[in-house]
Amino acid sequence: VDTFTEGVHFFPGTDPAALGHKALAVNLSDLAASGAQPLACLLALSLPSVDPVWLGGFSGGLLALARAFDCPLIGGDTTRSSPGGGISVTITVFGSAPDLKSVLRRQGAAPGDVIWVSGAIGAAALAVAARQDQGAPQPKVTDWLGNCSADQLALAGRCLDWPSPRVDLGLALRGLASACIDISDGLLADLSHLLLRSGRLGASLVESRLPLAQAVGALPEDVRRRLALRGGDDYELCFTAPASQTQSLQQSAEQLSIKLTPVGVVEAQAGIRLLTADGGSLPMETHAYEHFH
Amino acid sequence: VDTFTEGVHFFPGTDPAALGHKALAVNLSDLAASGAQPLACLLALSLPSVDPVWLGGFSGGLLALARAFDCPLIGGDTTRSSPGGGISVTITVFGSAPDLKSVLRRQGAAPGDVIWVSGAIGAAALAVAARQDQGAPQPKVTDWLGNCSADQLALAGRCLDWPSPRVDLGLALRGLASACIDISDGLLADLSHLLLRSGRLGASLVESRLPLAQAVGALPEDVRRRLALRGGDDYELCFTAPASQTQSLQQSAEQLSIKLTPVGVVEAQAGIRLLTADGGSLPMETHAYEHFH
Repeated sequence: VDTFTEGVHFFPGTDPAALGHKALAVNLSDLAASGAQPLACLLALSLPSVDPVWLGGFSGGLLALARAFDCPLIGGDTTRSSPGGGISVTITVFGSAPDLKSVLRRQGAAPGDVIWVSGAIGAAALAVAARQDQGAPQPKVTDWLGNCSADQLALAGRCLDWPSPRVDLGLALRGLASACIDISDGLLADLSHLLLRSGRLGASLVESRLPLAQAVGALPEDVRRRLALRGGDDYELCFTAPASQTQSLQQSAEQLSIKLTPVGVVEAQAGIRLLTADGGSLPMETHAYEHFH
Repeated sequence: VDTFTEGVHFFPGTDPAALGHKALAVNLSDLAASGAQPLACLLALSLPSVDPVWLGGFSGGLLALARAFDCPLIGGDTTRSSPGGGISVTITVFGSAPDLKSVLRRQGAAPGDVIWVSGAIGAAALAVAARQDQGAPQPKVTDWLGNCSADQLALAGRCLDWPSPRVDLGLALRGLASACIDISDGLLADLSHLLLRSGRLGASLVESRLPLAQAVGALPEDVRRRLALRGGDDYELCFTAPASQTQSLQQSAEQLSIKLTPVGVVEAQAGIRLLTADGGSLPMETHAYEHFH
């Protein structure tokens, strides 16, 4: 179950179709990270008022994704928001797995396992930065955003608004991955959850291997690093697997037409270290996402 | 899944333990109305800010009820409320039944079936009226509230804040009830849902048989009628059963120490009629609860 709140998880005025899509997508992404087959979903929707046009858009976005993943909406609750409050969308998804041992978990990684990331990361965080800068421009940010073309920013916006849950990949990772998580809060934060749950393990990440979204690659190094490591909302999968599974994983990647990139290795020493192009090893702060700040 | 919103479903400043209890209770009440055995629950909680004392109270109330009904909290999501918004609690409950035909539904009532109500009704609506009158006194309401003792109002407040879901009764009704619903929006509104789903049927209710909460019995006739028929939040069950099941139902009532009262009969003619003490038959308006008004 995941709650999606106006002004916290999405900008006021977000396209309702994108919102309906994304509210379900983030939940399907949790199923993907568990290697679960989607079964059905429930929608609890709180609205300040009823706007049929908004509702039509929202339902259209949600139901199209539900159909695409064969995950029908089987019930829910619709209520008024608390006075002064905004839109809030809580979706519960149900998924299945043939047995407990085929469920992917955050725990299970072992020292020596390879760390993989699907697709590309950083684009959604770039779009968040661009929209925040539109609302309240900051000269520094406006400056580095100038490195991105309008097309690149539009593409980043689509990554933020219309994430594609990696359900098929999650199913393919059953029996291959030793641990798995989806990147919702940023690679560092989510990988650190996985390492903690796997027994306070650590990792080294090779900076040059991080699969950056194209637009992000054009940015100054410090910005690029921040977006790639700390930017959330990409909903790619980060998983670990013994090196012996590398060939099977590459085959799966090809079958599913999903890019899978080995980005580092699990280590017994706690903490995450970033191996930089100049041969350095930077210890990374890995505060998990704070839900209240 | 049910959402419980500050300023909509509960008064700001509600005792957090009562809130935790009630948010789960209304969901367990839905399981009760389905004749389902509670299995587990999920909590999605949105809060404007973190208050450890509030959270302690809330969790205490929720978890005590979860334990009492063997319905463990197995997951959830905690987020900040949208700016300016209040507390919002969305709970998803899971329940089980041995097979589809033992699930109680809103559909299934037939003309001639007896309509039953569990426990007593009207107390929660009385408490709502008393609290609204405390916040914004209305001379008429203040006047009739004067018929109730402080003890009666305190008891009504407990009915509103600490409803007891009729899970055991729901289980006992498997195979006995032809249709079932819980009274969350008021007897008329919920019964009309049941009748509609059973094929646009109607009903006659015998006013003198309505199991009024004691405090409500002391009120003027028009108020009594309004609280009993239109007051929600009692979370008693309203169900229908063939007259042939009357003895079995009375045995179940005795075993469970729950009062069950036959209040009327299902009829083929649509609409709900109230048979009054003076021999009249009043057609009742049965607008269902409006979630936006």
